[in-house]
Amino acid sequence: MADKLILDGKIVSNEVKMKLKDRVDKLADIGITPCLATILVGEDPSSETYVKMKGNACEKLGIISKRIHLSADITTDTLLQTISELNEDDGVHGILLQHPVPDHIDERCAFESIAIEKDVDGVTSLGYGQTAFGFGVYPSCTPAAIMQIIDYFDIQVEGKNAVVVGRSPILGKPVSALLLNRNATVTTCHSYTENLELHLSQADIVVAAVGKPNFIQGSWLKEGAVVIDAGYNKGNVGDVDYESCYKKASAITPVPGGVGPVTISMLLKHTVESAERTVKI
Amino acid sequence: MADKLILDGKIVSNEVKMKLKDRVDKLADIGITPCLATILVGEDPSSETYVKMKGNACEKLGIISKRIHLSADITTDTLLQTISELNEDDGVHGILLQHPVPDHIDERCAFESIAIEKDVDGVTSLGYGQTAFGFGVYPSCTPAAIMQIIDYFDIQVEGKNAVVVGRSPILGKPVSALLLNRNATVTTCHSYTENLELHLSQADIVVAAVGKPNFIQGSWLKEGAVVIDAGYNKGNVGDVDYESCYKKASAITPVPGGVGPVTISMLLKHTVESAERTVKI
Repeated sequence: MADKLILDGKIVSNEVKMKLKDRVDKLADIGITPCLATILVGEDPSSETYVKMKGNACEKLGIISKRIHLSADITTDTLLQTISELNEDDGVHGILLQHPVPDHIDERCAFESIAIEKDVDGVTSLGYGQTAFGFGVYPSCTPAAIMQIIDYFDIQVEGKNAVVVGRSPILGKPVSALLLNRNATVTTCHSYTENLELHLSQADIVVAAVGKPNFIQGSWLKEGAVVIDAGYNKGNVGDVDYESCYKKASAITPVPGGVGPVTISMLLKHTVESAERTVKI
Repeated sequence: MADKLILDGKIVSNEVKMKLKDRVDKLADIGITPCLATILVGEDPSSETYVKMKGNACEKLGIISKRIHLSADITTDTLLQTISELNEDDGVHGILLQHPVPDHIDERCAFESIAIEKDVDGVTSLGYGQTAFGFGVYPSCTPAAIMQIIDYFDIQVEGKNAVVVGRSPILGKPVSALLLNRNATVTTCHSYTENLELHLSQADIVVAAVGKPNFIQGSWLKEGAVVIDAGYNKGNVGDVDYESCYKKASAITPVPGGVGPVTISMLLKHTVESAERTVKI
């Protein structure tokens, strides 16, 4: 058996950022600075932290972070108006609406209103459809990060059985689509799945995106499986019971330091690409 | 064991059409006649037959069939222009571009140019994305037909293992999405799948959408599986080896007379719904 592989997201993330730095410099040479607009609605502390992290990551790379903070009591219409203005603003290359917004706001409607060419966070149904059909340019960032990790560590996908646990619009569904496009046989499992352990026992690649701390047990896995933990729960733990899964897996992402840091890099990458596309047009 | 069930598409199709007739009459009362525009490019005899069948089915139900036949040597731009005019035409409620178009034409680009509210055939990536996210109104017609058959015969989907063999944008992918939205655990198999028989042996529901005559063998199936044959190959045969699969299955669609007739009914249904929506707006 090959050595156990820890899929270190920080290494991947650093490589991505290093390459991006060059691209940002090249854009600067022609007078363009990529700009990501982030919209935060309300005062949720976790959301504030996430938005701040993303903004800081932008600035560190020379990307403008345009931070919009709206009060919790705005209407859906006000949010749509804000997004519409950002859609029209030539200086803005990417728009990120931080999830979740307060309950009285129609989040899906707001997501859908983001212009496809600025949907660098990959939240629109159009972006998802294009990704699933193989010509999308900005897949949702966590799925994109998973594929980046898989590619960096040269993990074979074609012909493999991939089991994705979870089916959210920004994670389970798009990562299933990306794995399928790379010729994996993909099974999407979820809360109604009746024999999750059977499915997992046959999986060469497991993606955990279920939002339950330490949920996936090593005893459920096939010996030598590749385990990607896309979960992030309170107490800094993923969806995978790391200790037991580590023993069974041939390769595994840690939490923290696995998928998370690469996800932010994908957001930066998409923003830079969007800025580059404004030049090519 | 329950009786073997032949999933007769003609019964389903007739019921759908009967209900639609009432809706067409109600629209007539307020001066609206649903209209489906079909675009055929070139002289492919099978395509001509398909378009004719669809047009005739429209007319039989009181839906206007606006048939546009373009010569094989038109450019993509000409096709886009035609679609654009139909998008703008308030008298047209649905647009169907018959697949395939000649090789020199960018078919995907043409599909994508169909306005979402007239995409009654469910070919756009936006329509697919909306369907996968659970709020699409016109899923691709064959997947919609499959769900209609499943519902008509009261086949349980929730929690079941569904294996879809095939991953085309208008069949394998959307039917996988629809089954997932109905809480099946869905595995999408294809030409790179390494152990198709293992997957099929665990499937409660099998959807064959692979385009290979008599491909799926009864010996591969789980006893009592529900078998949906969405294939249609030369010689009037499906993707399923009917004789051997019939013995193993608890329920099975015949070819012809299974999914096919319901598919056309779904096209009519979507066209009528599109006409109804112009009133509601």
